[in-house]
Order: sequence, then C-alpha cells, then structure tokens
Amino acid sequence: MRLLRVLSLTFAVCLTTAFADEGMWLFNSPPTAQLKQKYNFEPTPQWLEHLQKASVRFNSGGSGSFISANGLVITNHHVGLDTLQKISNEQHNYVRDGFYAKSQKDEVKSTDLELNVLMSIEDVTDRIKAAVQSGTSPEEANKARRNVIAQIEKESREKTGLRSDVVTLYQGGVYNLYRYKRYDDVRLVFAPEQQTAFYGGDPDNFEYPRYDLDICIFRAYENGQPAKPEHYLKWNTKGPADGELTFVSGHPGKTDRQLAVSELARLRDDEMPYLMNMYNRREVVLGAWSARSFENARRAREDLFGVQNNRKRYGGYLGALLDPEIWRSIEQREQKLRDAMNSSTEWKPALAAYDRIRQADEATAKVLPVYNYYEQFRGRADASYRAPRGFYSRLFEYARRLVRAGDERPKPNGERFPEFRDSYRESLELELFSSEPIYDDYEIVKLTDSLTDLVTRFGTADPLVQKAMAGKSPVDRATELVSGTKLKDLAFRKQLYEGGAAAVSAAKDPMLELARLVDGPAREARSVFDAQDETKQQAYGEIARARFALEGTSSYPDATFTLRLSYGVVRGYEENGQQIPPLTNLAGLYQRGAQHNYQPPFDIPKRWLDRKTKLNLNTPFDFVSDADIIGGNSGSPVVNKANEFVGIIFDGNIQSLVLDCIFTDKQARAVSVDSAAISEALRKVYDAGALADEIEGRK
Amino acid sequence: MRLLRVLSLTFAVCLTTAFADEGMWLFNSPPTAQLKQKYNFEPTPQWLEHLQKASVRFNSGGSGSFISANGLVITNHHVGLDTLQKISNEQHNYVRDGFYAKSQKDEVKSTDLELNVLMSIEDVTDRIKAAVQSGTSPEEANKARRNVIAQIEKESREKTGLRSDVVTLYQGGVYNLYRYKRYDDVRLVFAPEQQTAFYGGDPDNFEYPRYDLDICIFRAYENGQPAKPEHYLKWNTKGPADGELTFVSGHPGKTDRQLAVSELARLRDDEMPYLMNMYNRREVVLGAWSARSFENARRAREDLFGVQNNRKRYGGYLGALLDPEIWRSIEQREQKLRDAMNSSTEWKPALAAYDRIRQADEATAKVLPVYNYYEQFRGRADASYRAPRGFYSRLFEYARRLVRAGDERPKPNGERFPEFRDSYRESLELELFSSEPIYDDYEIVKLTDSLTDLVTRFGTADPLVQKAMAGKSPVDRATELVSGTKLKDLAFRKQLYEGGAAAVSAAKDPMLELARLVDGPAREARSVFDAQDETKQQAYGEIARARFALEGTSSYPDATFTLRLSYGVVRGYEENGQQIPPLTNLAGLYQRGAQHNYQPPFDIPKRWLDRKTKLNLNTPFDFVSDADIIGGNSGSPVVNKANEFVGIIFDGNIQSLVLDCIFTDKQARAVSVDSAAISEALRKVYDAGALADEIEGRK
Repeated sequence: MRLLRVLSLTFAVCLTTAFADEGMWLFNSPPTAQLKQKYNFEPTPQWLEHLQKASVRFNSGGSGSFISANGLVITNHHVGLDTLQKISNEQHNYVRDGFYAKSQKDEVKSTDLELNVLMSIEDVTDRIKAAVQSGTSPEEANKARRNVIAQIEKESREKTGLRSDVVTLYQGGVYNLYRYKRYDDVRLVFAPEQQTAFYGGDPDNFEYPRYDLDICIFRAYENGQPAKPEHYLKWNTKGPADGELTFVSGHPGKTDRQLAVSELARLRDDEMPYLMNMYNRREVVLGAWSARSFENARRAREDLFGVQNNRKRYGGYLGALLDPEIWRSIEQREQKLRDAMNSSTEWKPALAAYDRIRQADEATAKVLPVYNYYEQFRGRADASYRAPRGFYSRLFEYARRLVRAGDERPKPNGERFPEFRDSYRESLELELFSSEPIYDDYEIVKLTDSLTDLVTRFGTADPLVQKAMAGKSPVDRATELVSGTKLKDLAFRKQLYEGGAAAVSAAKDPMLELARLVDGPAREARSVFDAQDETKQQAYGEIARARFALEGTSSYPDATFTLRLSYGVVRGYEENGQQIPPLTNLAGLYQRGAQHNYQPPFDIPKRWLDRKTKLNLNTPFDFVSDADIIGGNSGSPVVNKANEFVGIIFDGNIQSLVLDCIFTDKQARAVSVDSAAISEALRKVYDAGALADEIEGRK
Repeated sequence: MRLLRVLSLTFAVCLTTAFADEGMWLFNSPPTAQLKQKYNFEPTPQWLEHLQKASVRFNSGGSGSFISANGLVITNHHVGLDTLQKISNEQHNYVRDGFYAKSQKDEVKSTDLELNVLMSIEDVTDRIKAAVQSGTSPEEANKARRNVIAQIEKESREKTGLRSDVVTLYQGGVYNLYRYKRYDDVRLVFAPEQQTAFYGGDPDNFEYPRYDLDICIFRAYENGQPAKPEHYLKWNTKGPADGELTFVSGHPGKTDRQLAVSELARLRDDEMPYLMNMYNRREVVLGAWSARSFENARRAREDLFGVQNNRKRYGGYLGALLDPEIWRSIEQREQKLRDAMNSSTEWKPALAAYDRIRQADEATAKVLPVYNYYEQFRGRADASYRAPRGFYSRLFEYARRLVRAGDERPKPNGERFPEFRDSYRESLELELFSSEPIYDDYEIVKLTDSLTDLVTRFGTADPLVQKAMAGKSPVDRATELVSGTKLKDLAFRKQLYEGGAAAVSAAKDPMLELARLVDGPAREARSVFDAQDETKQQAYGEIARARFALEGTSSYPDATFTLRLSYGVVRGYEENGQQIPPLTNLAGLYQRGAQHNYQPPFDIPKRWLDRKTKLNLNTPFDFVSDADIIGGNSGSPVVNKANEFVGIIFDGNIQSLVLDCIFTDKQARAVSVDSAAISEALRKVYDAGALADEIEGRK
C-alpha cells in the first residue's frame, strides 16, 4: 500500500486519474465517467445546475455559496476580511470583534464588494479563432483576439444585461463565454472574531490539525431587498463522515499544470525567489510597524495576513519544485507528451512550440525587472489582483488608474488594456471610488519600503530612478508624495476620472505626476511582455491542441478563477510517521489553547471560554479531504452526494501547495470547516439562533 | 542655531571637531585638547589608566566594566544573553525568568565566556612595516605581515602570559600590540527577566524614549576565587544630570569612516541589499518557527533577536546611505582629502590608491557569491563573528572548524588562517568544546532555509550545489545531515580535534563530509578575497598616511572592537517637530505598559507590577547623550568627570545608525540605563540588597 502511494505521487500523471481524486473540472464537462467508475455516482444535469447556480464568486478573490432562500451567502472570514477591514474604523473593529446583525436593518453594507453567479456557459472558440488569420504576427493576433473578445463581451452584455467574460481555457485551446449575474449590494450579517476564524494565526496557517471557524456570512440584496436566488444549498447539520465522498464547487485561482519544464524552471529559479524576497521584506516591514501600536496593527492587519499567506504559499511551492523527486515527475509529464507528439506525423511539428515558449521567456526576461516594478500592477478589478510589486501604496494605485483611464478610455473598446474595457468599467469604478480609509502613516511605511527596493534594485544612477526619486531619500520622497497628494479625497478622484486626461494633467498632484512620469517605460515593458505572452499563449495552445488530440478530452484545464467542480474523500494522512486523523472537534480547540497557555495567536476569545460548558465538545470542527483545490477555492462549499452543504473549504495543508503544478494525494489535503461546527457555534456561542434557523431552513 | 546644526550634519568633517562630541579615541591618544578646549576638563594619565583597566571586553561581542573589588562585572543583558541561553535548559529559563544568586555558591558558571581586560598597548608599527619589503606582491606582503604578527603575538604571549593581539589601526597606518588579561571562569550573578531588559522588544529597539533595564551582572573568578581587579569603577547612585559631560569606555565594533566613496557605493548597492535579504528571510523563518510553540521560541530567541537587531541596524544604515544629503557629505569628505592630496607633491601619487581600491573591489566581486555563501564564516573566536551567511547551522560550524583545524594546525603558525593561530587556540577550543545544547529540529529549520538559499542562488545545475545537495530537496538534505551527524556529541568533537585530519577523514560523518566537499572552493574564493583585501589594506594605508600627513594626528582611527574613549553630553533632540527629553523615569515604564494594554512586548513582569508602590517612580530610568558610539559599545560604562559609573550604554537611536560611516549629533544619540535605576531596581524589585551594597561599596 505504501509503495502504491509513492508510485501515485511520482507517476501520478502516467496513471489514469481513476486512482486519484484529481481534477478541477468544468461544469460543462464534468468528471462523470470517473465518478461513476470509482464511486458509482452519476451527477445529473439538474444536480450540476443546482450546485453551479448556488455557487458564488467574490471579486475580492474567493468563493462562496447561497445558503438561504433570502440571499444569505457564506464564504470564509479571510475572503470577507477585505470588506470587514474597509467597513471598520476606530469605533468599530469588525475584524477583531466580529459582528452579528440581529435583524436585517442591522446588516452593514459593504463598500465595494461584487459577487458573481455563473448563469450560463457558451462556447465561442470558433468565433475567436476565426478572427485571427493564420500568418499574422503575434502582436496582430493579440490585437485581433482582444478586439473580438471585447466585441463578444459587449454584445452579450447588451443582449443579456449580464456580466459577460470570455474565459480562456486549455491555454487557448478553448474559449468560453461566461455570463454572470452580479450582486453589488452585499451586506454583512455575521462574522466571528478574527481570532476564532484564524485560530493559531500564521503559525497554524497551511497546517493540520486545525480548529478554525473561518466563515463569514453576507446577504445579497437586489433593489434594496434581500435577493431571492433560484438556487441555494440545503444545510446538513451533521457534516461529513470519515471516508465520505464530497464535492467542492469553487473558483480555483490559477494552476500551472500544463506549464513547460522550461517555464517551471524559470519560476523556480527566478520568479519564486523574487517573490519570496518581496514577501519576506514586506512581512518584516509590516510586522515591525504593526508591533509599534494597536492602531498600526489594525491598519496593516489585512495586508500583513495576505503577505504571510503568500510567503508560506510560495515557500511551500518553491520547496516542492526544489524536490528532485517532484521535479522528475514534472519532467516525465512533459516527456510523455513530447514522446507522443514525436510519434505522430500530425503533431510532431508542434514540438517546436516548446522552443518558442523558451525563447519568449528569454525575451521577456530582458524587460522583466522594469515590468515587475513599474507595470505588474493590473487592476483590483482583475481577478488575479495581487498587491503591486512596485510603488506599494493605495494612493499610487489610484494615480496609476486615473492616469491610465484618461489615456485608455477615449480609445476604441477593443484597443484598450483589458482592465479599461467596458466590461470592467463598473468594477474599475467600484475600486476607484472606494470609501476605504487611507492612512498617511501606513502609506508612507509601505511606499518607503517600495522606494528603497526601487533604488537598490535599479541603482541610484538609473535615470528613471533619479526622476522618480526627485533627489530625495526613500522616506523623504514617500512622505512628500503621500502628504502632498489629494487622491485621498474621493470627490477629487471622481472629478479627475470624469475630467479625463486633461483634468489629470491639470491637477499638479505629486502622485499623479509620478504615475505619469513612469507611464511610458511601464507601457513599453508591458508591450514586450504582452507580445511574448501572446507568443506563449499560441505555443501553449498548440501544445494543448496536441494534448487533446493525443490524450483525449478526459482532462481538465488549468484553473482560471472560474467555476470548477472537484471531488474527494474525507480522509487523513501520514506525516513524520504519525497518522493524522481527518476530523477535529471543538474539544481540540480548548486543548490547543491550554497547550499554548492561551498566548496569542492561541488565545481563545472570552465568549468561547464562557460558553464552553454549553457546547457539545464532540461536535466536528474542521476536516480534510483529498479534493483537488488551490487558492481561490477559499470559501467553496463542500457538498455531499445529496447536494447538501456539509462544509466550507478554507485552506490546504502545506503538502497541498505543490498542487499548483502537479497533483498528489499522498499527503496533500483540502481543509474545511464542518457544517456541524457552524450550526453549533451560531446557536451556542454567538446567540445567533435566528440566523442558524434561516440557514437550516427552519424559518 | 538650526542652521548651524544643519551645517554640522552636512559638513561635519569640514569643521573642527571642537563643535561636536565626535570620536572613538585611543586610550594612548586621548582627545585631551578637545576636552580641555570645549569642557575645560583634562583627564590625567591616572584617570585614563583607571578607566581603561576597569573596562572589560566580552568575547561574545560587547563591553562591560568591573564594578566591585570582588570581581563583579556589569554588561548588558543582550551581551550576557548568549550565556544566559547556553546555561538555560527546559528546567531553568534564565533568559525569560532572570536570575539572582543570593550567595557566591549560587553563582552559575558560564559555558564558554571569555573576558579580556586591556593591560598595555605597545606600538609595533615599525617592526611590522620592516617585515614587508617594498616591491613585494600583495600576497607575499600579506604572508610576511601575517608571519611577523604571529611572531610578535607569540613572543609577547610567551613573555607575559597575557593574550596578545596585534591590532591594525588607521587602516594599517599604525599597528599596536594589545595585551589582555583573560578571565574564563565567569559566573552569572544577576539578570533581570528579558522582558525587563528588552522592554518594548523589537518595536522599541533603536527607538527612544525607552524604559529598559538592559543589564546583566557576572563575577570573574581566578583560581576558583572571586577576582580582585586592581581597578574597578566607583558607583554613583544618582546618575547623570541633563547637560552633564560623560565618558564612554568600550569596544566599538567597526566603523567605515575612512571608506572610499567607491566602496561605500558597493556597500549601498550590493552588500546591504544582500544582507537585508538574508536578515528578512531569517527573521521570517525563525519568527514563523518560534510561533509554533514556546519551546521553539526559547530555542530560537537569541538568534531571532540578533537577526531583528541586524535587520534594523542595516536597514537604518542603508536608509542613511540612500539619503542624497548624507551621500553628498560622504563625497565631500573624500573630495576634501583628494584635493589636499592633489595639491601636495608628496601625496599626489597616492591618489592612485583610490583606483586600486575600486579595482580590488571589482576583482573581489567575481568571487563574492561563492565567498559569501561558502566562506564568510570566520570563527566565533573572531571578534567580528556574525552568524554565517551560508550553511546556517551550529553543526556545520563545528564541521567546518574541525575539517580546517585538521588541515591548518600542522602548518607553521604564521601560515595558518588567523583563526587557527596559536593566539586564538584557547578561544577556538572554548567554542568547539562548548556544552551548549543542540536541537535537531532547530538546526533543520535553519539549514533548510540556508540550503534553499544555496540552490536558488547558484541554481540546481551548479555542480557544487549538486554535490552539496546529494540529489535531495533542501528539507530532506537538512534532515539527513542533522540527523546523521554525531557532531552533537562533545566527546566526539574532542576526539576528532585531537585526532586531526586523519580522524576527521575516517569519521564518515555526513556533516564533516559536506564541510570537506566545499572546502576547496571556499578556500579558493577566500584566497582571492584575502589577496584583494590585502591590496585594499595597502591602498587604505597609503590614504591613511596621506591623511595623517595632511590633516594632522588629531584624528581617531576607525573602530576595531578594541578599547576606545568617547565623550558626550546628556541631551535630548528634535524629531518630527517634537522635542525628545534626554531622561525617562520609572513612571514612564508603567505608562507605556498601560498604553499598550500590557500586551507583549509591552507586558510588565509581575514582580514589577507588585513592587510598583515601593518604587520611587521619579527615579531616572534611561538617558541619551551625544557620545560617538556604535555596535560593540553595548555594555560600555558611562562615567562622569569623577570617573564614577553613572550608566551603561545599551543602544543607539535609529538616527545613530548612520554613525557607522559618518558622525552627526543632530539627532543621533547613545542610549543608556541610568545607574540610579539599577540601584533602585536591585533593592526594591529584585530583593538584591546585598548585591546593591556590594556595587555601591557599602559592604
């Protein structure tokens, strides 16, 4: 048995997927055969539609689901955190203290949260491919594709009124038009204290066993009234059993499972060390600043959490790529496909695509330092939003967005950068007109660190650096920019956005002037990057097509922060010679607290200490399954065969970080909160019986 | 007045030092003229000798002083920390809980602490210069100099029985033979809780105002009896007044005040970003590991403290070098000397020395990656000991030391690496035969991080990396090395040390084999580094000679972790428009705790809370002066004109970090514990009246 498991790690890709619960499947191409063969379970179209339409995407980067007829949506606390942070102020600390709205009128409106529900999927591959004539240059192909995509999105939006996104699947092998119902009036109903949601803090993050109630409940509104979703999940108060088959419906962010070895080598050798350097630096800077006062800590909390989370995530991923055993499986995966291509008259010429990928990466590498610092800065409206790598300041983000909006919006829709297309307009404005508070001192801390990185990365003699720094030290320049800009003022931002390029130029605002100053070089690097990316996209498309032809259509595409179905069994694993059981219970929380003398981050909130005797301590708390998940799946509902909500994904263990590039079920596990713990806690800890009644359908 | 201050920052070097309390002066060349001119105070030879011989150097990297007739030595808690950590175990946590030996029999022997007292200074410049014939190559000159230095040290040691070190001053302009009396039986008498010593933790480190009792008291023994030092400092129970002239006698570690602009640019552009990357990484790794359990935190505490301290130190230093205003002063300092040289027929040719420095740095840069990772690893016996940059593991340190000892010790004394010369032998053995506990899990954490750095820095394809990694991932290789080595066993280390190279080869120990494997490339990089360093040393020597000739002998040499005299006035400073007063008091401690809700690192130990009502809360606690100090001065006594102990240096504020390369008294301040606070705390908080009586001379 041990031997088989080892084999399944090393040669997972060489075996049929029937042996492993692998795959992030499309709802329009579900793993029916695998489920039937291995579990004798066949999801019906109705079963799939119900789960699809009960699933919710959070534009802040996560997943969730409808859980009541009156629009209740459950997600993770760490997905809702962005909103909790934004609606908090010095009077109300929703992050630290949690929240419960006893009645609908008490529900707190979020500032810029957008939820999307996938309503339909349409294949538009042929139309997009037809728009790109063979023999065109990569730049022209990119432009043609951007144009036709913009056109398709616009038409769909005008016809249906739904948010319409063309989604690229199989690295360009397939294009699907996804139509989403949008909800932008979303109100906070319930959140536990962050200490309960994130019990064990960074030390326990990505670890198991866990004792976290990582949930947050919102209510979607339409026209000022609670939404009445057609589909919502029925609640199961018991949670799943050890060994039970479960399903996960959510939005895995990004996997690299089709990546060429040459590109993975670049990730391992350059990109990840770069990111680890950045995250380590920010963790230290934000951590040190947070330690100076409570208020500092509150202001930086969400960013620091994101940084620590990413540091662990990329650290785990890098660790896996540096494992020669895993690297060999990656090489074997590619070799297997290369061998098959080589044996095929039709696909042998496509082998050259691997060389084009390598060459494109080499060409990109030349502009990468500039691209990373000055341009790696796509909008928050973009699902793949990450904190910027350079000019780490919300105020610079506003400046960049306003300068670019002024230049891009007058262009024809299809020629704009994607983040300024009409289809993103509402999201862009939501971001730009956020009422989120801005703190000068915090902006200065982040920007000082970024400017130090700028100067040391490019050198004090670099002409662009000299212009950007204006003869000042990093701290003096950051202070000058943050103190001097008026972009903190929402009305001012609106005025500039409406006034366009002329208003932006006339503003004489130091942050806008900085954004303008670096705009040319940033665009230049982006144009090289995008052209090479286009080349790679085509090359990967060719490989993907070869793969379809040679390996059949039973495979699933890489994750793209669009809705996917995964499945897996609740089961433990072995670690350092110990068997880790799959379920924890509420008693375990109190034990872990006692072991750590209740010191942060292992302190237990007073409410939980007070209510301990009322609780059934045998209630399951968290559980693991071997479902194939990744970042973005946070908040995904876990359902049983009856399509009942039995849990909510909130983490993967550290061994699961390798899932980014290769599947393994040896130790990798998805970690969920058990529905039983949620019911028990709402009723007995938070006096939220009415809310529990609503989600349990007792109302 | 403001203008004058700004001028004194920008042009400090252009003005006479009479305007500023600048300088880390030699005891054989004290700033008598300056003191007389500015303060009308003239230290007598007796005054100087008394202070010199009451001063103590800690081989673990700090300063201290004798404060009783029976060998009591006071230093900082953070200087004693290394010892407190080593003598702690799971039963006794001296670091966390502090310690007080009520009687001499309770005093705890330290494991490998060595104290040095400077007994005499002899000028040996002529003899060393005579040994290097003009026209020899840098390598030959280096060898000749090493030979004659080893000879001088050996002769002196044999003649006097004293530790004898030849000290290079003025970048080789002057060589002095320092003879030290050694104490290696040193016992712990008193330490406060670390929380009291390091109140405010990393957040308050390098900040002011402060409320720290950063002291630790040992007793030196000779022949099993308390030492009877000829000189010890009389205790002043009141501490200094605002505006009072004070003196600091201690061992500033290293300053770069003579460095060429080209070398400072290299520090700014390469070395400091490299170090910041390393310290950030280690802070995150050690911090995350510490957070997993109390025992982890105890094991990593000292290292983590060192890392955070260095991160802030280099961060502050880098911040200053990136300040164009400070950079201009640095350029002006060099330009002023270059202009003077250019105008002198005798010294004009010496201008070429600047080019040689630049060229040597360029040549060094080629081997620097290998040197940094594989060789930047001088012994702990070396005063400039830092945690290694590569193979960060105590077990690898032992392996490196044993492999090298086997190869080096059979060579003639003068041909060995300095850390294996006879003069360092006792220190080397003290280090190698330390009974300090080794924890496998902690060694694995540190070494995994180092090996990840190795692989990402040099690439998986690098042949030496491949040999070092032996086909394993960083975590697997680290686990294999740490679990497999027997170097944890003190008897085994002794046996190998005594058995020499043959025993080391025969041991078949994986860590020794790794150390052997990388020894050749490490030595190769070192030989390039040392040769270029020799070139630079000669070039700096030439510049230093020019400087003597042109600017007179009223200057002081760069710090070298040898005894120096600084002076300064107790005075506050302005920061962000606020006036910071020079003295804090005990009441302030309780206020700062309350402001932070007594949350770590602002929690106040129970003993202090219990005794609050007994204390005179107006007692001065910490104070700042504008004395010229730097790292290594930690634990230095601060005395008044009567040579009485009035305080003990424990920190510099963040503005003082620039003192590494240029003096300023605008905001830079040395931070000390007031002698009054020490007396008050010993008597009323720690029930250590007998100890207070002894240091106050009431016994």
